[in-house]
Amino acid sequence: MPSPLHRIAAALALVLALPAAAEQPFTPRLNAGDRMLRFDWPALSIGTGEYAEGPTGVTVFHFARKALAAVDVRGGAPGTVNTDYLRLGYNTPELDAVVFAGGSWYGLEAATAVATALKDDGARGGGFDDIALSVGAIIYDLGARRLNEVYPDKTLAQAALRAARPGVFALGGEGAGRFAMSGGYFGCAAHSGQGGAFRQVGAVKIAAFVVVNALGVVTDREGRIAACYPDPTWPKGLKTSDLLAGAPQSRQGGWTGPPAGQAHSGRNTTISLVVVNQKMSWDQLQRLAVQVHSSMGRAIQPFATVDDGDVLYAVSTEELDPAAGGPALAPVDVGVIAAETMWDAILSSVPEQPVAAKPAFGPPPKSETLESFAGEYVFSPSVSIRVSRQGERLFAQAVGRRDAFAIPRASPVALLPAGDAVFSVPGRYPLTLRFDPGGTLTLNPGHWAQIGRWMGR
Amino acid sequence: MPSPLHRIAAALALVLALPAAAEQPFTPRLNAGDRMLRFDWPALSIGTGEYAEGPTGVTVFHFARKALAAVDVRGGAPGTVNTDYLRLGYNTPELDAVVFAGGSWYGLEAATAVATALKDDGARGGGFDDIALSVGAIIYDLGARRLNEVYPDKTLAQAALRAARPGVFALGGEGAGRFAMSGGYFGCAAHSGQGGAFRQVGAVKIAAFVVVNALGVVTDREGRIAACYPDPTWPKGLKTSDLLAGAPQSRQGGWTGPPAGQAHSGRNTTISLVVVNQKMSWDQLQRLAVQVHSSMGRAIQPFATVDDGDVLYAVSTEELDPAAGGPALAPVDVGVIAAETMWDAILSSVPEQPVAAKPAFGPPPKSETLESFAGEYVFSPSVSIRVSRQGERLFAQAVGRRDAFAIPRASPVALLPAGDAVFSVPGRYPLTLRFDPGGTLTLNPGHWAQIGRWMGR
Amino acid sequence: MPSPLHRIAAALALVLALPAAAEQPFTPRLNAGDRMLRFDWPALSIGTGEYAEGPTGVTVFHFARKALAAVDVRGGAPGTVNTDYLRLGYNTPELDAVVFAGGSWYGLEAATAVATALKDDGARGGGFDDIALSVGAIIYDLGARRLNEVYPDKTLAQAALRAARPGVFALGGEGAGRFAMSGGYFGCAAHSGQGGAFRQVGAVKIAAFVVVNALGVVTDREGRIAACYPDPTWPKGLKTSDLLAGAPQSRQGGWTGPPAGQAHSGRNTTISLVVVNQKMSWDQLQRLAVQVHSSMGRAIQPFATVDDGDVLYAVSTEELDPAAGGPALAPVDVGVIAAETMWDAILSSVPEQPVAAKPAFGPPPKSETLESFAGEYVFSPSVSIRVSRQGERLFAQAVGRRDAFAIPRASPVALLPAGDAVFSVPGRYPLTLRFDPGGTLTLNPGHWAQIGRWMGR
Amino acid sequence: MPSPLHRIAAALALVLALPAAAEQPFTPRLNAGDRMLRFDWPALSIGTGEYAEGPTGVTVFHFARKALAAVDVRGGAPGTVNTDYLRLGYNTPELDAVVFAGGSWYGLEAATAVATALKDDGARGGGFDDIALSVGAIIYDLGARRLNEVYPDKTLAQAALRAARPGVFALGGEGAGRFAMSGGYFGCAAHSGQGGAFRQVGAVKIAAFVVVNALGVVTDREGRIAACYPDPTWPKGLKTSDLLAGAPQSRQGGWTGPPAGQAHSGRNTTISLVVVNQKMSWDQLQRLAVQVHSSMGRAIQPFATVDDGDVLYAVSTEELDPAAGGPALAPVDVGVIAAETMWDAILSSVPEQPVAAKPAFGPPPKSETLESFAGEYVFSPSVSIRVSRQGERLFAQAVGRRDAFAIPRASPVALLPAGDAVFSVPGRYPLTLRFDPGGTLTLNPGHWAQIGRWMGR
Repeated sequence: MPSPLHRIAAALALVLALPAAAEQPFTPRLNAGDRMLRFDWPALSIGTGEYAEGPTGVTVFHFARKALAAVDVRGGAPGTVNTDYLRLGYNTPELDAVVFAGGSWYGLEAATAVATALKDDGARGGGFDDIALSVGAIIYDLGARRLNEVYPDKTLAQAALRAARPGVFALGGEGAGRFAMSGGYFGCAAHSGQGGAFRQVGAVKIAAFVVVNALGVVTDREGRIAACYPDPTWPKGLKTSDLLAGAPQSRQGGWTGPPAGQAHSGRNTTISLVVVNQKMSWDQLQRLAVQVHSSMGRAIQPFATVDDGDVLYAVSTEELDPAAGGPALAPVDVGVIAAETMWDAILSSVPEQPVAAKPAFGPPPKSETLESFAGEYVFSPSVSIRVSRQGERLFAQAVGRRDAFAIPRASPVALLPAGDAVFSVPGRYPLTLRFDPGGTLTLNPGHWAQIGRWMGR
Repeated sequence: MPSPLHRIAAALALVLALPAAAEQPFTPRLNAGDRMLRFDWPALSIGTGEYAEGPTGVTVFHFARKALAAVDVRGGAPGTVNTDYLRLGYNTPELDAVVFAGGSWYGLEAATAVATALKDDGARGGGFDDIALSVGAIIYDLGARRLNEVYPDKTLAQAALRAARPGVFALGGEGAGRFAMSGGYFGCAAHSGQGGAFRQVGAVKIAAFVVVNALGVVTDREGRIAACYPDPTWPKGLKTSDLLAGAPQSRQGGWTGPPAGQAHSGRNTTISLVVVNQKMSWDQLQRLAVQVHSSMGRAIQPFATVDDGDVLYAVSTEELDPAAGGPALAPVDVGVIAAETMWDAILSSVPEQPVAAKPAFGPPPKSETLESFAGEYVFSPSVSIRVSRQGERLFAQAVGRRDAFAIPRASPVALLPAGDAVFSVPGRYPLTLRFDPGGTLTLNPGHWAQIGRWMGR
Repeated sequence: MPSPLHRIAAALALVLALPAAAEQPFTPRLNAGDRMLRFDWPALSIGTGEYAEGPTGVTVFHFARKALAAVDVRGGAPGTVNTDYLRLGYNTPELDAVVFAGGSWYGLEAATAVATALKDDGARGGGFDDIALSVGAIIYDLGARRLNEVYPDKTLAQAALRAARPGVFALGGEGAGRFAMSGGYFGCAAHSGQGGAFRQVGAVKIAAFVVVNALGVVTDREGRIAACYPDPTWPKGLKTSDLLAGAPQSRQGGWTGPPAGQAHSGRNTTISLVVVNQKMSWDQLQRLAVQVHSSMGRAIQPFATVDDGDVLYAVSTEELDPAAGGPALAPVDVGVIAAETMWDAILSSVPEQPVAAKPAFGPPPKSETLESFAGEYVFSPSVSIRVSRQGERLFAQAVGRRDAFAIPRASPVALLPAGDAVFSVPGRYPLTLRFDPGGTLTLNPGHWAQIGRWMGR
Repeated sequence: MPSPLHRIAAALALVLALPAAAEQPFTPRLNAGDRMLRFDWPALSIGTGEYAEGPTGVTVFHFARKALAAVDVRGGAPGTVNTDYLRLGYNTPELDAVVFAGGSWYGLEAATAVATALKDDGARGGGFDDIALSVGAIIYDLGARRLNEVYPDKTLAQAALRAARPGVFALGGEGAGRFAMSGGYFGCAAHSGQGGAFRQVGAVKIAAFVVVNALGVVTDREGRIAACYPDPTWPKGLKTSDLLAGAPQSRQGGWTGPPAGQAHSGRNTTISLVVVNQKMSWDQLQRLAVQVHSSMGRAIQPFATVDDGDVLYAVSTEELDPAAGGPALAPVDVGVIAAETMWDAILSSVPEQPVAAKPAFGPPPKSETLESFAGEYVFSPSVSIRVSRQGERLFAQAVGRRDAFAIPRASPVALLPAGDAVFSVPGRYPLTLRFDPGGTLTLNPGHWAQIGRWMGR
């Protein structure tokens, strides 16, 4: 239990920590992750940066030499940088970096910052054949899914670029996929992330990377759902095709699912990248982008909806030149293999899902303990949670501009004890509250934790 | 056996029947088919026309009133009419008809002829708000897959329009799908066709139509291959995912498969149409087109490759207006249901596959019988087959601009007796030759028969 | 004066001449014109076909060998064929012909018929690298500007293709420009046509062709209006910039001008073609198309409005290969020179404008003469003119679906005598009526004459 | 003359002033300018920011409420943010700001920084209907035209946004137009800038803004060249049409002109914005964008070339709703008036051109004076100028990665005295060198000055 003095100190710290206008005072966490794809390809370096305070992040794909690129954009809510240039049909390699980021349109700052970092660092200059070209796309990881609006900014993106290294890519909830989710269409609200896969056929190298923030459910080659918090009424063993066959009745008003009748939203988006070392002309790359993007409708169902804003970049490092007589694949074969690699990448994006805290069956916590937890915990300027005690029960109510997950603004919800200082709110999705020494309240302790600070009563 | 006189008469008839320049002297066959989708929707009439001489055909979708439309084009070899207009974002219903045809780019004549027929018939005029708008797309059903270049022309398309009727749609190898094929990527060379499906959710009607002429294999919801002539070396029970996992080795140089290394071709193309009665704005229709088109990558694998030129039209008849308070679905739900309907439509397109004639085990045909079959049989100005006897065996060799299926130009191939006047050429694909009274040679008797006429020795 | 018997015969002839459904029974007039652009370029043949009964027509540009092409589409009402294919970025020459036609969307039949004629004639076949590719665009020359809806059809287009010859191009109201007009935005209602120009810089050949059916006014390099029937209230010597500065007040409700507040229309469209012999990549051709199309806003003001549907094709015959060390221009220079050539072409499209018949100052025609003119003259199933006599004056009134120029349906308009059998209707635009022996009434005798046949009283 | 100590101090200052990696340590200059367009429109605020060290800058157009937008992109080298979203056809107003910037692709950081500033300041949040949407475009003002690669960065753009105010817009070389140029195609190398114009027709307000960094020459309505340093061989009184008629011979290898034969470059780009208060649907806005963009080919000739990357945004503030019965213009009229307003805006962008320093005719400077000027002056990490004395003459030679205007790296060029400490290099373009107390060398003193610091000998 924090002492009153401690609490005042905490409150002061919070005030001091609140971002001044135009500045996010967070510390980049670089190249985090415990599940890594490793592959041999010196021409491509990858760096990730994350702000735990979101959490949110950015992933930078940096090419050792200028590369040729094409793009395919689908769905209803894209956020992009420099795609117009990629559509002009030039066969001149000009691309330096592809940047994926969270933070919705705010995350595009990360994409532009990679180009300026390349110039600031002297890697690129101002001659018209020497300007850095970075392209990018973002996912929507704001709104109801976290209690703040932290976004990957210039500082984070430039740090990630400078930390980039070849041959390693973090899988799961890291980088731009730090707070990705999937399956909102059926109310799954599964945590998702970034995925990657690599194949080599002879001398041809093909890598696929993806940040899966899809309205649809991730589906494996047997048609099984890769991750979903099921509705309690669903029968066991449902496959994706079952859910689709039952639409729209199989949709349940879930965590991030769009309400019926809504015209469009920016709530989802799957962004992806295919890289090949085989030299391909622009029209071949463009066809490759279309083919692989279309194939992704198998691994994510539904895909490319009005509530997605899917973007796929296809890039050739041009290291392997068929015209020079080297080994090469037919472009359509590159597409088929890239599509299968992308399916692997999508499946690899799924992290282990958090589980709900188990109810505690011992005697209830003492009143004074409960009382010590009471107060208002600030998560961001938008959302606080007010914790109050009534007798031997603790209640929570959201305050501010929106609800805090299953803790509504409308009325207090009772918390179920699940440990000494741990409580839960029952429901389809895990919602755990842990009161920590020092006056913080952690929602969903773990990889996607949201932390509020005690601000008084 | 035809008498010499008979043969001369036949040859004369052939000369007379050979098309004069700029005219295809064939008789339209209208609304053929024995497997019909039936549904209740007076606002949409459908007519098909076919030339058995191809065989090839056209399918006309005619709307009772001007409808709103959007289009999504993918892949490497589209043939289209009036798509630019559909991309302007207008919310004014202007579409009269969608026309699908065989004949590659030549079949676009069918699309434009529907508009002029509407004018010639007085249904549409010249006021700028009264001009007929027909859009269209074609499939490639020429080249190696038939021995002539007959195409759906103005005459055929206008006849099909005038024969259009609501609520009936022929499934399988009819209309524009008359000589569609699928699975060329893996050498499947399966016959395909046109498919259709209809769903009603409350008052919302959704229909999907498709002509499956895909490089990919048609795949059902369990991942099984719907139709394919398998390579003899394949293990039993292969699923589509197995073939894809084995690419490019699992590709076999098949009937219509593109050779490795080929940049692009117009050999395939899946063209499709989604119709809804719910009023949708142009941007919603456009999103619907993208969503459904992406979903088709499940039922056809691979999809939207450089060797396809896929086109999907989305049309709203605007009969059901959500703004007027009527029952309606969220646009994303329309997309999900339309995507499932489209999968049904694709599966319904698969006709029963022809089987090879069984070898006859009796005594071989007599020499004089064999001798009576000898001669040159003309299939079109491009291809003839020369039949010759050597002892008790019959041989066939192609003459002209290209091979006749497994009958090459390079050297004669021996024919295996399979009946009195029936022979076969063994191989992965059925190839049956039947000598008919009257001096004709029918290749692959049945729905996709090719008929050659005796022209002398 | 026609005798009664003569009149009956004429009426019968008219009935017989009325097109049966689905057939336009007109005789093509090929390669007409008295003002010719001549140039030396064997690789490009041009043919025109016209139906005097419209009048309307088609212009076919046929390339001796497959050529590379790009397209730029602008404005609010395009009608196109096969543009999607041209946007795929391929560097493989595939184009056979560009077809321009009148008849609005109906004229697209002409574009598709050129491809089928190439196949029917054996010039092209069915191999996927041998299929004829024709692209096309149309202008709107229907509606209020003529009294019928005759359109360039398959028969006309195929005849024009077969009549094509190199080095000659008819200027003015010929081919697809047979009934083009310009300046409707300011009520100019000037007759326009097709224009062409050719420049050679060293070995580089550049040709520009255009059918000017623009809402804007054709403007020369000094800013002068090339053709316009001015509003009587306008001061003398107005330049295009004066009219624009005075907009919207300078607009007068003219012949073809769209009424204020109208969302969009298909009433205009300028379609154009740039051909170069220098080999250019697809991206260079695409840039060329954009540059030249943008430059046309100088010669046509306003340009690319919602009431235009402008389309420009850029084609390289690839005869001169810079990579082979031959003489060549920088692509941007090709664009600049092509833009100036296009301005020349636009100016060359303007034909001599018809003038109004002068009023006759002698004694008025006799009553019986006037009486012999009375009756209903049929111009098409849509419009007739009913001529009646009241005392010594003749009156005309339109009957049918729309007005006949300044002869309204609402009430009879008095005709001013201008010769023995010639009358006029005064107004901003010339409107002359000539009663001919044989029972026909010719409106605006001359190049754009409309002919009605006496059908009784 | 600076003392040695002074010089050491200066050198130290320079070292300290050199930007550390990833940071531009410059002070924003906000809303500068002495020639202002003023107009009454509270819904639109405009702010500019500049770094004198470039000089370069940014212009931010911020809308008081979410606005509807469309975009038209042309030419060969665009740099854009979020254009894909604008093409989806939505009729929902979502735009917050349009950002124009110098700095080529690096300047896109300015565009994304405006969105994040709106969030950081609390004006926008994270709800999917509350996310800030900023779009943007950039011009190329790097390369040969200045001696550094300073770009408008996040700091500058956010300062400009926060300084935005309604009704005032700086004309000429300010904001994003700080170092714009025009006419490079003919070697004009004229300084250009940003222009603006405003018209009101009844209640309809139309504003046009443009940053003219065009390959073409700015041209007025009489066809006269607005600004150009003519080649000495040109006759007097040349009009733009004369230069075009003489192409390609009329091109001279000028300052920024691309060398002949060059495929494409990012050296130019005209970016523009049309704002109307009349409510227009997305399709109307899109047509407006196309119409106005096409019209700009009159005021800038040539336009939309491969060496431009032109982008135009069209925005409606929706304050005046025709559907509500208010006064309104037909969309095509809005386009015509907006096009004329844009021409005015383009003409207003031209600043007074610098003139060359006049040669001094007195006695030459003393040797010791000249000697005191000698040394190496650093302009940026890329370029220095080495000044040396030989007898009574001063010489300059560029050092580093590229030439310093007419001061080459190849060999020293003699400087002509033009005052006490002022010299010039004769040629087509003014090039003045002024040695200042404190050890700086100012090239072209005045608005576009480049300042080098003495770094030793």
